[in-house]
Amino acid sequence: MAVTRSDIDLAHALADAAGQVIRPYFRRDAGVEMKDDQSPVTRADREAEAAMRRLIEAERSGDGIHGEEYGVKQGVSGRQWVLDPIDGTRSFVAGRAIFGTLIALLEDGWPVLGIIDQPVQRERWVGVAGRATVFNGAPVRTRACPQLSGALLATTSPHLFADDDVGHFTALAAATSGDGRGIVYGGDCYNYGLLAGGHLDLVCESGLKLHDFAALAPIVEGAGGRLCDWNGDPLTAASEGHVLAIGDPARTDDVLEALRAVPHAH
Amino acid sequence: MAVTRSDIDLAHALADAAGQVIRPYFRRDAGVEMKDDQSPVTRADREAEAAMRRLIEAERSGDGIHGEEYGVKQGVSGRQWVLDPIDGTRSFVAGRAIFGTLIALLEDGWPVLGIIDQPVQRERWVGVAGRATVFNGAPVRTRACPQLSGALLATTSPHLFADDDVGHFTALAAATSGDGRGIVYGGDCYNYGLLAGGHLDLVCESGLKLHDFAALAPIVEGAGGRLCDWNGDPLTAASEGHVLAIGDPARTDDVLEALRAVPHAH
Repeated sequence: MAVTRSDIDLAHALADAAGQVIRPYFRRDAGVEMKDDQSPVTRADREAEAAMRRLIEAERSGDGIHGEEYGVKQGVSGRQWVLDPIDGTRSFVAGRAIFGTLIALLEDGWPVLGIIDQPVQRERWVGVAGRATVFNGAPVRTRACPQLSGALLATTSPHLFADDDVGHFTALAAATSGDGRGIVYGGDCYNYGLLAGGHLDLVCESGLKLHDFAALAPIVEGAGGRLCDWNGDPLTAASEGHVLAIGDPARTDDVLEALRAVPHAH
Repeated sequence: MAVTRSDIDLAHALADAAGQVIRPYFRRDAGVEMKDDQSPVTRADREAEAAMRRLIEAERSGDGIHGEEYGVKQGVSGRQWVLDPIDGTRSFVAGRAIFGTLIALLEDGWPVLGIIDQPVQRERWVGVAGRATVFNGAPVRTRACPQLSGALLATTSPHLFADDDVGHFTALAAATSGDGRGIVYGGDCYNYGLLAGGHLDLVCESGLKLHDFAALAPIVEGAGGRLCDWNGDPLTAASEGHVLAIGDPARTDDVLEALRAVPHAH
């Protein structure tokens, strides 16, 4: 199977539907609750995912669905839609338009289509396996990064990193910006779109789940970059959520080596 | 002296002029260089400040100017314009439209007018001593925060905090969100605008300079909040840059007490 025009149209329709739900809640009371894992969820998350699921069930009744808020619906087609209605709920709740709706299509477990949609700024990145990534309809490319010491590195929060991961991240940060003050914090999925567009060189995170990273590979790789785990391996549904996006694949070995070097404890 | 219509018009004109310079550089090559303190600066920073200084010199030749990029021009009027053309240069360089132009007017050293302007999203907060803060022309208010444990806390980067400050910040974070995962990272001046609009409860930072915080007091206080240092004292040009914005002033004692409680070292 390959990704068809009809798949891409449906993915756009899903993003449109989610955006229509989310926009009216932005900077208004969206009813924040804390989930069991202490991550926030709002009516906007739930209603946006429900709107996308309705569309998929109407148009692709045989496809599976894996959504952050409403779980897994098994399919029979070998295809699965992976949905995160609002990636970056804390940014959304705080009124910052750098969250995103994530939509991925997996075939036999591999992501072949990904969308990052920012509904307030009306920005949309679309990646399809084997094609050039587009941002609001125009092709985008990652940028060259001749030296790791000049790389602009982003991550959402220092609290993403479990104890064992902190040292590895700190070592990568030291290799890029010395004292770490050069790191761009916050941003969730939006940072991966900016990397695809050539504005950031690296994104390094851990603790991500399938719905957080499934959409990213087609977008980053279709723009010329690389998306992998902290060992350099491709991400799968079974990955532990150590995610690395590298704008310039020529820096891959440098990045992996820096991640392995753990600084001495104080 | 009081803030006049003409002062407010000039402040808007400064923000307009800076925005006209900055927008064409956004997500294009703005020529990043590192300053001596290892903070980045771009042509957009320099040209935007130059444009604002030209306007002030043309219209208020007796006023002083204190700009991040071009330093201090002494005045004779007792009034000083404090300018930060791009607060959040790292976000600007990364293509995230949550940086801001900061403009403050000081009278005898006290900020009486402040603007946070986001030129890409075309968002502008204006605060004037004794008046209600406005966002894109409409009044805004901070929100009530009945309990510190339910507060949404933002800070730009964990690397803002010098060694002695980390413990205090960590203690405040623990009092708001337990494990710190609830903190919103990134955002620079934009977070203070969101607090004025009732979307965030607390912003806590250190290492800020006069050009980073002078515009914030009229905006936060005109929206019903409080801007102070980590002891609860008003910020002045001589402050050490420990900045605290509290949306609900009823939480002030709780916040100051939490900041003083330093957790045990590991």
